[in-house]
Amino acid sequence: MTIQRPAHPATIRFTDGADGVVILDQTLLPERVEERTLSTVEQVEEAIRSLRVRGAPLIGITAAMGVAAIATQEAALGTPADALAAVVRAACDRLARARPTAVNLTWALDRMRAALDGAPAAAPPAISLATALVTEATAILTEDREMCRRMGEHALGLLAGDGEALTLLTHCNAGSLATGGIGTALAPIYLAHEAGRAIRVFADETRPLLQGSRLTAWELQRAGIDVTVISDGMPGALMARERVDAVLVGADRIAANGDVANKIGTYGLAVLARHHGVPFYVLAPTSTVDLATPTGSDIEIEHRDPDEIRRGFGRLTAPDSAAVWSPAFDVTPADLIAAIVTERGVHLAPFARSLGEAVAAAERDGKRLS
Amino acid sequence: MTIQRPAHPATIRFTDGADGVVILDQTLLPERVEERTLSTVEQVEEAIRSLRVRGAPLIGITAAMGVAAIATQEAALGTPADALAAVVRAACDRLARARPTAVNLTWALDRMRAALDGAPAAAPPAISLATALVTEATAILTEDREMCRRMGEHALGLLAGDGEALTLLTHCNAGSLATGGIGTALAPIYLAHEAGRAIRVFADETRPLLQGSRLTAWELQRAGIDVTVISDGMPGALMARERVDAVLVGADRIAANGDVANKIGTYGLAVLARHHGVPFYVLAPTSTVDLATPTGSDIEIEHRDPDEIRRGFGRLTAPDSAAVWSPAFDVTPADLIAAIVTERGVHLAPFARSLGEAVAAAERDGKRLS
Repeated sequence: MTIQRPAHPATIRFTDGADGVVILDQTLLPERVEERTLSTVEQVEEAIRSLRVRGAPLIGITAAMGVAAIATQEAALGTPADALAAVVRAACDRLARARPTAVNLTWALDRMRAALDGAPAAAPPAISLATALVTEATAILTEDREMCRRMGEHALGLLAGDGEALTLLTHCNAGSLATGGIGTALAPIYLAHEAGRAIRVFADETRPLLQGSRLTAWELQRAGIDVTVISDGMPGALMARERVDAVLVGADRIAANGDVANKIGTYGLAVLARHHGVPFYVLAPTSTVDLATPTGSDIEIEHRDPDEIRRGFGRLTAPDSAAVWSPAFDVTPADLIAAIVTERGVHLAPFARSLGEAVAAAERDGKRLS
Repeated sequence: MTIQRPAHPATIRFTDGADGVVILDQTLLPERVEERTLSTVEQVEEAIRSLRVRGAPLIGITAAMGVAAIATQEAALGTPADALAAVVRAACDRLARARPTAVNLTWALDRMRAALDGAPAAAPPAISLATALVTEATAILTEDREMCRRMGEHALGLLAGDGEALTLLTHCNAGSLATGGIGTALAPIYLAHEAGRAIRVFADETRPLLQGSRLTAWELQRAGIDVTVISDGMPGALMARERVDAVLVGADRIAANGDVANKIGTYGLAVLARHHGVPFYVLAPTSTVDLATPTGSDIEIEHRDPDEIRRGFGRLTAPDSAAVWSPAFDVTPADLIAAIVTERGVHLAPFARSLGEAVAAAERDGKRLS
């Protein structure tokens, strides 16, 4: 079904009754705006594996809400509490394997398991278990929204000038479609727009899967923000031609020293930003900081299917036997990064201490998905 | 029809009898390898306008051969010499407008007009005119082949090491498909391969029209050269990961000071090459040097149709109303270029004097397409 235009697309929500999860199917954008209801663990797993939902925070949220929806169904069927708990644990185990590198997935499912174990012993017991799980999944979603907003506020403080017009450049999609809220890298853009500030955003299309042109351009345009798509070879010409105030990107993993793994193309953008004196900012929640990874060279880089390059658009765009090198991510060394922004604040070089403290504080504050 | 595999694809040739021009239709590559025979001025014009043939040298060659084929047809029909000359002049005027920015097009057609005027007054006169035009078009093609080889030889001298394995990176297509010979930027690659040197080439796919993945990968693969396609966001990650010995690109226009306009993405590649200490070489014939353009900022940049970004592969890959900024070319400032290679030799910074001398020498040597 085609949905109406909210200021931000409804990336994810429970069905009425919380017995299913309604997602926006991101593989169809921008050709079709279609919601899809996930009602079984198989459907939730498939949606994550096939990138119908993507973005580390949103993957965690989807898994948590999926588990809660399954518990709600079992409770409605009159399943005893013990059996319901077994179904939920099996669902958590299965979903944890859907995308093993997305750290937020494990985290969110650990929270769901803890909520199951800690549910109050109220009667009827199966219903109280299901209620506890729906409450926890809702908390994960709500906290994510709050973290996005905080990242946006911290980053806004970095953007120079007092209400002046801003020209910003971003890569891939680190927006509302990647989170439960207003995104990571796009959060300050939404906040500045809300505050009435004139903003112009350039979005790299981001081959091979075009999350920039398909997703970032789509969500910013729906929010009424001036967005212009460029191909991945154009950021240099753009910076040479007009003032770009900042480059804003998300992150897939941040090493303890501040090196950042993010969508392929990010590193080239950072080098161009340095060459042109444009500040390069990375926005991500503290959950993206992996203190167990000392530097960027310790990050294993996933490689994509060569056919995303050779026939990614349904046509043969390279010889069908052509060799392809297609890393999903690259590593931007900390020394090219002007600031890393988390929900805890703005981190400046040298990053190790500040990031370590932020992660420790997030862990002290307990179970929040950050 | 599907053609057999030669070492290099037959980019262009006369039909038997020289009454038509057989081109490889580059818009269909790599999905289909199909030749197309051009027999009328309308067909030649359409082939140039719609990029069935592209690359500045090849555009000039196609127009010259097309004019010669039309003259051959008229002579066979018994058209009198005066009428034949009028048809040829009208064809030249029409083809000169097919792509007004391709300087080689004007040049080649000027040569054809001069050949018409200077044809020997032998009998029968119409046939001797047609023969003179076929001879001139063939000379343009042959000279272009020779210039490609010379550029390749000069550039080979720049590539370090004595027969060591080379890893090279190129952008767009500056190969045999852009010329009558072995290309400009790809010429040293073909020569090194012929000499038995181990070579590995990375080819940027080059959005929006993917000349890198569609054309460069195709022609190098057919020649048995190890080629790997990467997307336009990947050169940075590549240079960070392994040694790249040189970046080789062609040029669409070279200003008097050595600033180079070339396919969009070239400038970003030059900045990355500088950041990684990789020499950045530009290869083009002296006809690409425009002494009337003082610097790169004087070059007007053509913009492409936004739908090449929004729906370039037959699918909607951005919102259909999305704004798109799509310059066809960017400008690489001379200070990022290690050397410019023409058929006259290797030009080093400061480029102005050396380029000026090369252009003057080419003009002194007369009518050659260089």
